[in-house]
Amino acid sequence: MIEIEVKARVDDAKKMERTIIALGATPIGIQAQADTYYNAPHRNFESTDEALRIRVEGGDTFLTYKGPKIDKVSKTRHEFQTVINDPEIMGNILSSLGFFPVATVTKRRKNYRLGDFFISLDKVRDLGNFIEIEISVKDSRNYEEKVESIFKFIEKLGISRDDTIRSSYLEMILEKN
Amino acid sequence: MIEIEVKARVDDAKKMERTIIALGATPIGIQAQADTYYNAPHRNFESTDEALRIRVEGGDTFLTYKGPKIDKVSKTRHEFQTVINDPEIMGNILSSLGFFPVATVTKRRKNYRLGDFFISLDKVRDLGNFIEIEISVKDSRNYEEKVESIFKFIEKLGISRDDTIRSSYLEMILEKN
Repeated sequence: MIEIEVKARVDDAKKMERTIIALGATPIGIQAQADTYYNAPHRNFESTDEALRIRVEGGDTFLTYKGPKIDKVSKTRHEFQTVINDPEIMGNILSSLGFFPVATVTKRRKNYRLGDFFISLDKVRDLGNFIEIEISVKDSRNYEEKVESIFKFIEKLGISRDDTIRSSYLEMILEKN
Repeated sequence: MIEIEVKARVDDAKKMERTIIALGATPIGIQAQADTYYNAPHRNFESTDEALRIRVEGGDTFLTYKGPKIDKVSKTRHEFQTVINDPEIMGNILSSLGFFPVATVTKRRKNYRLGDFFISLDKVRDLGNFIEIEISVKDSRNYEEKVESIFKFIEKLGISRDDTIRSSYLEMILEKN
C-alpha cells in the first residue's frame, strides 16, 4: 500500500472546513497530538530520513519509528508503532541511551472522509493551519493518476498546486527555530 | 534504597524448596519471564555496565533500561521501565535503530518472603537451578552487617559463601555460548 499525501497552508480554517463539507466531506473525528521527535547519537535522522517519535494522544502514548522512504516515487516507509504506558519514562529510556529530543509538534487535527480521500484540517502550534489530503493506492501503477486527482481536488479548494508543501511539520518547526 | 543480592547454584531444587519452607519462608508467587537483552550500535553495554531488555512475563511486556552501578559498594542502578503492548514491534523498533539482541534469559521464578529476605528459586533455561536472596537497606551504614546476614543464611542452606555467584544470568549465558 502506498500513501499519497498532499499538504498546503490554509489561511481561513473555518472557511476551508465549510468548503470541504459543502463538497461532501464527512467528519470522522478530532485528535489532539503532541509528537516529540528524537535524534540518535550514532546517526543523524535528518540525513538518514528516519524518525523516532513519542506521541501523546489523549490518554494514549505511542512509540513510533519510521524508516527512510523505500523508493523515490512514493512516500512509503517502514513504520513500527507500539503503545507504551508512560511517555516520561520512555523519554528517560531514550535519553539514557543517548537519543535527544529535537522538537515537539503539537497539533489539533480534524479528520474527514470524502470518497477515496482522507482529509485532515490541522492547527499546528507555532505554524498555523494546514490541510492534508491523503489517498492510498495498492501499487504504483495508478500512482500518477491518483496524484493528479488530489491536485485537481486541491485546486477546487482554491489552492494552487504550486503552493503545496513537501516538508513535514517537524522540518518546518526545525527550520523556523 | 540499596538492593543486596546473593546468588548460588542449587543442585536439588525440590529439596531446597522444602528446606526454605521448613525455615519459615512463605510462597508469594510464581513468575515466568523471558528477557531479551540488546546491545547498542554506538557503545558496548558489556563495557558500560548498562542493560536494555524486553521482558515478556505472562501477558505483559516491559521495556527496561538499567544504567551502570552508581557506586562501588552497592549494586544500585538507575532503572527505567515502561509497559509496552507488543514485544515483537518493540524488537523491530530497536533493530531498526541499530540495537541487536545478544541473548534471551528464560526462567521460571518462585518467590518467597522470609523476614527481611526476598528469596527466589529460579529454573533458568540452559543454566539450571539457582537461589537468589535479596534484601533492601536504606543506606550503606548497615550494609556489611546485612551482607553477613545473607551469607549466614545461605550457609544454613548448605551452600558455602565461596560458591556464591556474582555473574548475572545474561553473563552466564553469554559465557556459555
